[in-house]
Amino acid sequence: MNIDLDKLRVVLVATRNPLNIGAAARAMSNFGVPYLRVVNPYEVAFREARSAVGAARLLANAEEYGSVAGAIADCALVVGTSAAERRDPQLPVRRLEDGARRIRKQLLAGPVALLFGSEKVGLSNRDLNHCHWVMRIPTRDEHASMNLGQAVAVCLYELVRQGKLSNPTGKKARAKAEDAERITHLLFESLEASGYVKPRTAEITKEKVRQLVRRLELGADDANLWLGMLRQIAWKLGRDADGRSQ
Amino acid sequence: MNIDLDKLRVVLVATRNPLNIGAAARAMSNFGVPYLRVVNPYEVAFREARSAVGAARLLANAEEYGSVAGAIADCALVVGTSAAERRDPQLPVRRLEDGARRIRKQLLAGPVALLFGSEKVGLSNRDLNHCHWVMRIPTRDEHASMNLGQAVAVCLYELVRQGKLSNPTGKKARAKAEDAERITHLLFESLEASGYVKPRTAEITKEKVRQLVRRLELGADDANLWLGMLRQIAWKLGRDADGRSQ
Repeated sequence: MNIDLDKLRVVLVATRNPLNIGAAARAMSNFGVPYLRVVNPYEVAFREARSAVGAARLLANAEEYGSVAGAIADCALVVGTSAAERRDPQLPVRRLEDGARRIRKQLLAGPVALLFGSEKVGLSNRDLNHCHWVMRIPTRDEHASMNLGQAVAVCLYELVRQGKLSNPTGKKARAKAEDAERITHLLFESLEASGYVKPRTAEITKEKVRQLVRRLELGADDANLWLGMLRQIAWKLGRDADGRSQ
Repeated sequence: MNIDLDKLRVVLVATRNPLNIGAAARAMSNFGVPYLRVVNPYEVAFREARSAVGAARLLANAEEYGSVAGAIADCALVVGTSAAERRDPQLPVRRLEDGARRIRKQLLAGPVALLFGSEKVGLSNRDLNHCHWVMRIPTRDEHASMNLGQAVAVCLYELVRQGKLSNPTGKKARAKAEDAERITHLLFESLEASGYVKPRTAEITKEKVRQLVRRLELGADDANLWLGMLRQIAWKLGRDADGRSQ
């Protein structure tokens, strides 16, 4: 983790379903975001979620607040999330990518709150009045409203993704040209023995086989496997041919 | 939506929990991915999910399959998803961003299958042998395993996100999974007839051959060439074997 996700506060407002609190906590744990705050959860839901398997520690440490104002008091940036475009023109709406970029910048300086509303109605206008702007996941207009746990997962993924933009991977060793050529010979030999190759076009066929094998762009390990298999097939076809000609 | 998400097939393998099937369907609807396929779901789970509120049409249209091979037959690219780094070094693992980029390219040419395993164990090695590579969501190593519905949401978000950025170039048609499977069978048959396959390890060898063929990432034209060649070789080996046994 190369950004201070410790400074992010995921704030669930008036969540009803314990499964959703649990799912949010699980996504937080997956992406390395430790601090959960809940505002006026349905009490039973919060209790049940806390006793659920999996995200135990994170949920046990979750802080409960009686108001949004309390839950965000220590945060310098407060961001609401919303499925649909807000009717309220006062509050800027930013796409998830752009929003996540701004949140990441602010996390370098201090705590940021990311608010998610209840399953039914999302964040109320009252809740939104505490926010600097709203972040929107690019869902379809026809079905914009996401499941709460999924919305949390997608937002946190985007925050983590941006933290790791460049990441080169090691590449496997490629097969040597001489191995590709050996494979070409064995395959051609097998094709000849099986009657696939017409004598008149043998040279052309061999070139085609050579190109075909080159296009495989085999790794060194795979080349060895192919060599072993084709050696056996070519040997068998050759032996059968010898047997018959005797 | 500016890419052909109509050509994406989300394939849930052996899903147990109806809530997860429903959650996957909801994320699909949110991000505009219409086609869901389920392989061997727990029957009750699938029935319950279908009767759930919300994603009704998408679930009603979901296709049920008895095998992974059947569910991916028309797809030229088959991608597994995995929470943890695979133990199996044979299958390339790509980070979600890179993987989504490749999927998007291939969607311009034809159907792509994106496989999600069961809640408990994910995709089995057998399932993975049908895959060209594995896509990994960048979760923490300490808690890598995501909730199924959340994993689907994050993958689809990344596919949609990239669709709004730029647009790539035309690529050659990839071989369909059913052709790769035919090549696997013919090659295995030839190896058996040639004495390469030891009866005690035949099953393992077949799986290895399947992986090997998948790793070739054949184009459609090359797949036809291979099919023609292997058919001839397998036929010849079979005929010789018959000849001798008479």
